[in-house]
Amino acid sequence: MGRTLGLLACLALLGTSAFLVAAPGDPPIKVASPLASWRDTEAKKAITDFVVRVTVEESSDCVPPAERIAVFDNDGTLWPENPLPFQLAFALDELRRRLPDEPAWKEDPAVQAALKGDLPALLSDHYKGLFRIVELTGSGMTTVEFAHRVRDWFAAAKHPRFDRPYDQLAYQPMLELLQYLRDNGFKTFIVSGGGADFMRVFSERVYGIPPEQVVGSNARTVYELRDDGPVLVKTLDHLFVDDGPGKPVGIHQFIGRRPIACFGNSDGDLQMLEYTTIDNTRPSLGVIIHHTDAEREYAYDAKPKSSGKLVTALAEAPKRGWIVVDMKNDWAEIFTP
Amino acid sequence: MGRTLGLLACLALLGTSAFLVAAPGDPPIKVASPLASWRDTEAKKAITDFVVRVTVEESSDCVPPAERIAVFDNDGTLWPENPLPFQLAFALDELRRRLPDEPAWKEDPAVQAALKGDLPALLSDHYKGLFRIVELTGSGMTTVEFAHRVRDWFAAAKHPRFDRPYDQLAYQPMLELLQYLRDNGFKTFIVSGGGADFMRVFSERVYGIPPEQVVGSNARTVYELRDDGPVLVKTLDHLFVDDGPGKPVGIHQFIGRRPIACFGNSDGDLQMLEYTTIDNTRPSLGVIIHHTDAEREYAYDAKPKSSGKLVTALAEAPKRGWIVVDMKNDWAEIFTP
Repeated sequence: MGRTLGLLACLALLGTSAFLVAAPGDPPIKVASPLASWRDTEAKKAITDFVVRVTVEESSDCVPPAERIAVFDNDGTLWPENPLPFQLAFALDELRRRLPDEPAWKEDPAVQAALKGDLPALLSDHYKGLFRIVELTGSGMTTVEFAHRVRDWFAAAKHPRFDRPYDQLAYQPMLELLQYLRDNGFKTFIVSGGGADFMRVFSERVYGIPPEQVVGSNARTVYELRDDGPVLVKTLDHLFVDDGPGKPVGIHQFIGRRPIACFGNSDGDLQMLEYTTIDNTRPSLGVIIHHTDAEREYAYDAKPKSSGKLVTALAEAPKRGWIVVDMKNDWAEIFTP
Repeated sequence: MGRTLGLLACLALLGTSAFLVAAPGDPPIKVASPLASWRDTEAKKAITDFVVRVTVEESSDCVPPAERIAVFDNDGTLWPENPLPFQLAFALDELRRRLPDEPAWKEDPAVQAALKGDLPALLSDHYKGLFRIVELTGSGMTTVEFAHRVRDWFAAAKHPRFDRPYDQLAYQPMLELLQYLRDNGFKTFIVSGGGADFMRVFSERVYGIPPEQVVGSNARTVYELRDDGPVLVKTLDHLFVDDGPGKPVGIHQFIGRRPIACFGNSDGDLQMLEYTTIDNTRPSLGVIIHHTDAEREYAYDAKPKSSGKLVTALAEAPKRGWIVVDMKNDWAEIFTP
């Protein structure tokens, strides 16, 4: 690295101001405040104070960039999870699209429940019906074919309430937060119960998070060298559900070190919040996004509309020092205008 | 990113020369040639030609930095695998160290074979004995405890032939190659049959490869919140052996996109070489390190001394366009002097 480049890079890693560094002689380039859609409340201050604390080199709390790992839940944290988690909406649409070519599916109790929109039936008996739907619509094809189907769905489907393509519903304050953390030398990861193969189709384009930084539910593929090249066929073997106590397990398996910042919105993120913040040798930050805005988005915690139950983590927050973001009061914007 | 910083970063990504970029007014900073321990042979030329081809922006073959994924086998590719793969040497030393406290182990046939150094017995019946040794020495403890044991071992153990700590035996030409690729915008990953938890202890320090870019054999941990904080307990459940056809599976699971450059040394790397180079929509490079130097290191292929059998991949190399590195002739140095 050239000397000036090195210096600039160090400054960029340290910089938390609205001014980015230009070469001597250049006028300073003013960019938008990094968290423009956040109101100036306690939540924003807690986040920016933490980032300053771990990035100022003179401080004994400074964390080397390699260890600045930030993990984000996806559904309900980076985008909505209502009226259904978006991946479930995809699976149901896929079911309907493929049903004419798969007559045997009509006899399947899980398919019947799905077509009736009977969510309780799908979720009963340890999500047996739901896994069956995921199996039908997300296995037995190559990883490339699956990615095509997901891409086609995003291009065509719209959210029933907001009338936008699903991938245009990322929360604007969270997009700013992801960028702000990366600008301060953090590596941002998704750690979600959603399927890794599903999320990787859009994570780079929507969140700036590359596929290799997406930890999600997954199962083992099977390698085949076919006449038209090597493929990986999706199965549900060795299914790993990256939720609840599975999240620290996924973090260790895929990232291999403890995060210092964790963002979630439900009790499914409880263990990942614990793993990030309890007895960490580094300073750490835990943040819960609380859905409090029925007018602009949704309001729920103990009684979610689909997934996203939030009771234990919310009760633990004061004791653990986790920041609770009140969407209604702390966010000036919810979606990108 | 400031204007000058952006420009310099682009130049650095493009630069393949021995001169790195300095600010206007600074004298140019000359650094050592990036592949100083490689002789000027066809192998080196093939590698550098490929890197130039995929990094020159005007070229239609230019690959965006995000897709410049390079994968490296570890044992036999980045460091030796003789007289035993280093992780097996660790496991045997651990067995001996802990034996006085584990009297029941003495009755175990796998332990008896290991203590006698009876490698064929350990490897028979689909590696049953070997897995038993790995289970005894690498599960039933927390990930942090395991990492401590590995660290202690590296601090104390020495390679029987080279009389150096094992982690000082990385091949100097490969260290230069890793750095050269990173200097050209590549993200370097290990994809190895070795245990991920073992390799992550030294990968960043020795290879400059952070834990989150280490794909290896792994099994599921169990999360517990103990009085002294959250821990992950190692098990052998859902064991995944990241070797042979498992390597493309691991690449998809952990990285989520096809590499464009792959470096291996044995038939265990065959499928990863295929997955990288056959019908890739991007230009791609496959490289096999051929152990031909009995004097400075080891010479083997069809009849390896421990692991590392190389027959099929070597035979396929001409047809597939894979580069075969002849360690004796292509490398001026093997180890860091």
